[in-house]
Amino acid sequence: MRKKLVLTAAVTGAGDTHKKNPNVPVTPKEIAESAIASAKAGASVAHIHARDPKTGGITHDVEIYREIVERIREADTDVVINITSGGGGDFVPSKQTPSAGGEGTDIQTAEERHRPVGELLPEMCTLDCGSLNFADQIYMSPTEWLREQAKLVQQSGVKPELECFDTGHIRFAKQLIDEGLVDMDPIFQFCLGIPWGAEADAETMVYMQNRLPENAHWSAFGIGRQQLPIAAQSALMGGNVRVGLEDNIYLKKGVPATNEQLVDKMVGILAIQGQEPMTPQETRNYLGLRGSN
Amino acid sequence: MRKKLVLTAAVTGAGDTHKKNPNVPVTPKEIAESAIASAKAGASVAHIHARDPKTGGITHDVEIYREIVERIREADTDVVINITSGGGGDFVPSKQTPSAGGEGTDIQTAEERHRPVGELLPEMCTLDCGSLNFADQIYMSPTEWLREQAKLVQQSGVKPELECFDTGHIRFAKQLIDEGLVDMDPIFQFCLGIPWGAEADAETMVYMQNRLPENAHWSAFGIGRQQLPIAAQSALMGGNVRVGLEDNIYLKKGVPATNEQLVDKMVGILAIQGQEPMTPQETRNYLGLRGSN
Amino acid sequence: MRKKLVLTAAVTGAGDTHKKNPNVPVTPKEIAESAIASAKAGASVAHIHARDPKTGGITHDVEIYREIVERIREADTDVVINITSGGGGDFVPSKQTPSAGGEGTDIQTAEERHRPVGELLPEMCTLDCGSLNFADQIYMSPTEWLREQAKLVQQSGVKPELECFDTGHIRFAKQLIDEGLVDMDPIFQFCLGIPWGAEADAETMVYMQNRLPENAHWSAFGIGRQQLPIAAQSALMGGNVRVGLEDNIYLKKGVPATNEQLVDKMVGILAIQGQEPMTPQETRNYLGLRGSN
Amino acid sequence: MRKKLVLTAAVTGAGDTHKKNPNVPVTPKEIAESAIASAKAGASVAHIHARDPKTGGITHDVEIYREIVERIREADTDVVINITSGGGGDFVPSKQTPSAGGEGTDIQTAEERHRPVGELLPEMCTLDCGSLNFADQIYMSPTEWLREQAKLVQQSGVKPELECFDTGHIRFAKQLIDEGLVDMDPIFQFCLGIPWGAEADAETMVYMQNRLPENAHWSAFGIGRQQLPIAAQSALMGGNVRVGLEDNIYLKKGVPATNEQLVDKMVGILAIQGQEPMTPQETRNYLGLRGSN
Ligand SMILES: [Zn+2]
Ligand SMILES: [Zn+2]
Ligand SMILES: [Zn+2]
Ligand SMILES: [Zn+2]
Repeated sequence: MRKKLVLTAAVTGAGDTHKKNPNVPVTPKEIAESAIASAKAGASVAHIHARDPKTGGITHDVEIYREIVERIREADTDVVINITSGGGGDFVPSKQTPSAGGEGTDIQTAEERHRPVGELLPEMCTLDCGSLNFADQIYMSPTEWLREQAKLVQQSGVKPELECFDTGHIRFAKQLIDEGLVDMDPIFQFCLGIPWGAEADAETMVYMQNRLPENAHWSAFGIGRQQLPIAAQSALMGGNVRVGLEDNIYLKKGVPATNEQLVDKMVGILAIQGQEPMTPQETRNYLGLRGSN
Repeated sequence: MRKKLVLTAAVTGAGDTHKKNPNVPVTPKEIAESAIASAKAGASVAHIHARDPKTGGITHDVEIYREIVERIREADTDVVINITSGGGGDFVPSKQTPSAGGEGTDIQTAEERHRPVGELLPEMCTLDCGSLNFADQIYMSPTEWLREQAKLVQQSGVKPELECFDTGHIRFAKQLIDEGLVDMDPIFQFCLGIPWGAEADAETMVYMQNRLPENAHWSAFGIGRQQLPIAAQSALMGGNVRVGLEDNIYLKKGVPATNEQLVDKMVGILAIQGQEPMTPQETRNYLGLRGSN
Repeated sequence: MRKKLVLTAAVTGAGDTHKKNPNVPVTPKEIAESAIASAKAGASVAHIHARDPKTGGITHDVEIYREIVERIREADTDVVINITSGGGGDFVPSKQTPSAGGEGTDIQTAEERHRPVGELLPEMCTLDCGSLNFADQIYMSPTEWLREQAKLVQQSGVKPELECFDTGHIRFAKQLIDEGLVDMDPIFQFCLGIPWGAEADAETMVYMQNRLPENAHWSAFGIGRQQLPIAAQSALMGGNVRVGLEDNIYLKKGVPATNEQLVDKMVGILAIQGQEPMTPQETRNYLGLRGSN
Repeated sequence: MRKKLVLTAAVTGAGDTHKKNPNVPVTPKEIAESAIASAKAGASVAHIHARDPKTGGITHDVEIYREIVERIREADTDVVINITSGGGGDFVPSKQTPSAGGEGTDIQTAEERHRPVGELLPEMCTLDCGSLNFADQIYMSPTEWLREQAKLVQQSGVKPELECFDTGHIRFAKQLIDEGLVDMDPIFQFCLGIPWGAEADAETMVYMQNRLPENAHWSAFGIGRQQLPIAAQSALMGGNVRVGLEDNIYLKKGVPATNEQLVDKMVGILAIQGQEPMTPQETRNYLGLRGSN
């Protein structure tokens, strides 16, 4: 059990969850402010998706990402910025032509997915290491695109966080490392409980941890009401943690959370476990990010 | 460790592997004869894909399936027939329109995938419980199609073998059971070592076995040179086994196998472990198939 | 994850740890008061050892046990009482005659170990399910004595908590159940981190939990600074919890704890995890103790 | 999976099992001949206990060990010799004075246990890393004696095989390594299925393997009818193997085995798995024994 660990606040995801919880930030200003508030509550890293200010849903607009990132950089926080590179990956087979995406489909190429990262050069970005049934859609991330994207991330000097939704994704992440497309020491994120990826429980975390290459950093998060239990266990098992409205919108049953409340609650859990989050600068040095000293 | 267990011969897959190993059966006659020879060597179940006699590659033609099944049924063997219902699931993004399948894509709907099973009413069929990156393609099996296909299988009185390529597939298979779309006692097959699904090793088998619902039957297979080691371990750990040219085309390095050789070798491994394959009729009774008595 | 779970306060062990932490209760009055204070802080169960009021070390004197138990029973708490039946089990080979115990040896027979339990009839007692090197002594609990002791406990109508210091102890506990010497539903306690028993970590808890018979209740505790992390993980993994000065005497590094502080801290951890301790009466009903209704 | 691995023949144990199986070697000549025959059948290592030629039971007589070792050394085999250093470890509490050993007790000190090893200087010896209930006796190996014995073994230039009957024994073996009393690369043997030590199954092997220090060599054996299944799995999981009449006296149910038959059967299992035993010289080089070149 490490005394200090990386606490990531995933402040907003891609879905239109603000309809269930009005605290979910939507506009660039809201997203930036929520990231800043999370940092003040103790987050080491702010993980960012952009949203369309009009619909509240997903957007890939680099200018929106730019506004979010600039607002955070201009604020009085040095929180590490981690931008999603998941981009457009949703595929829903068309009724007429099942081999083509129908309504709900949003597929970007590797190059398109990389654009916000390549333009804004955050210190970290996520990289989703495979395809799977993601609820009733398919999240599509073909191997060739992942190789291309990994190379673009590497060339940008951004450090990828290798998101693994199931155990085969860990295998492919190791393949990327073996192919020289991800630099050491790699950072893994176990994304647990998503239907239909790996389960959110202790046995799964033990199993996945046993699969990691030497020198890997790792973290695990669970979705919904598994968020705090999985984060607590990850911290107890030697991992880093992630909380935030991307993965869970409730403080407890029926009570909508804010990002800073979830971070604050996590800091409280860590404290009682004798642990605390790293500062952003400690995080840079620990993970070997661009801004390390 | 059970003394008697189900030995499935997966006599031919969907790929054009006969180019590497001329023993891989291609025509309906060859496939049927290889299934029959496997049964004589000790296989309890013959798992069947059809191939286009001209190209050697995949076909979904019901008439080809019919010829294979009829030839086996007419032979002097009562081997249990297990037809794939994987059907067309390969997706390769088009260069021009990445949200549509390009060259190499072969996507069938649930109904289409079910057709050979529904028409020929074997006692078993496979059901692949999710999507994943399958080497450099995407194997696509969306949840809604799986629900529809499970229902069609159930209505046909055929017993599905729930193929799980990664751990999330087990979760979805259990969801199908919970929704009443798969009857008890369910049959699971862990498909191990496929890039980029679950790893082929003992820890993975232990982990996956721990995820199973009560009363589940299970088997595991590994691909390539993992075929016999994983089958041996599955048998030792209480599971059933599967060998055959669908998953592995070599007897040992550089030596092309036949299906009956692989079955024979597996029977030898079982014998030395104090185990033996069930007869087809024992299999029917054990798994609760249509032909049980 | 269960919302309500059993929280045991192990208020004092057998060693003379009050020299390191003056809060460790020694006299019957101190032990009883600490148990009562723990109950008020939220403990469902008080686990009791007696100590020699003069030396502070171990005693097997039934009258001392009686005074502790009566003081608790007379207080305004209905906390479940759980008396150790570990008794005298310490063996240190004599220098002269290694097959006989030398200085530091304290071996009681099954009947002797059972006496406080048999006389005072608490609702629960511990039963240590095997022998092992316990630091630089041998803790000796031979199988025949355990069978005899289990029978005596059963005849007394007391429910045993099957303490397992390593994985073979779980096997023997299951043997006792199979022989009809422990009634269903059995209660297991995983005692983790003791040199040289099982490790205190998540993988060990997962492994041990996977060994349990159907319908088993379980809890895990870790010693020293592992106390709160293991208890937190046990609660998150579906188990019950135990804290207290028997297993750990510090609140944090260098700060001596009281039992009620440790219970209070545990209740705080549970609260933040969305959990809470059962009341003593809920515990009785849940575990099927004599006083259940 | 390694292609070549160490195959140990444990040709005779300490019990009087020749009454159940007359093939169990008893006299020095019989033991040596059985070791030689095992080597010819493919064993890399012969693991030796001495027996009292009159009773067939255990003896600690160095002269008997000497005769066995000399007979093997004089034969036309260079099999690696591995002598037990378990010595007298059986404790059965006396009815009258339970803190002293009664009938069936056979306790030697560390120095006494070491004598055959120290005098005869085999290349390997076992070292049992803890105490446990061993069927209805206690096997007693206190920590201080183990430290002393490890030092004596180290000074003798003999390489110890660290026998672990349960998971805490692995912890203590690592403690010996940390204290500098066992040299790198350490050799572990998981002794599985003994009542009441760790279970003989795949999950236990996975768990134990995950506990090993870097660079550890390991092997696992199961007793009774678990012998061949556990050995097969150990080989498949990357471990070495051990078979022989010490752990199992039957070829199959009701058919008494000889050591060479068990070795031969194991070689057959390895062959079918694409594996083979190392020669004695390959074993020396691989394990870093005195006779390596
Ligand atoms: Zn995200
Ligand atoms: Zn198939
Ligand atoms: Zn106690
Ligand atoms: Zn031995």
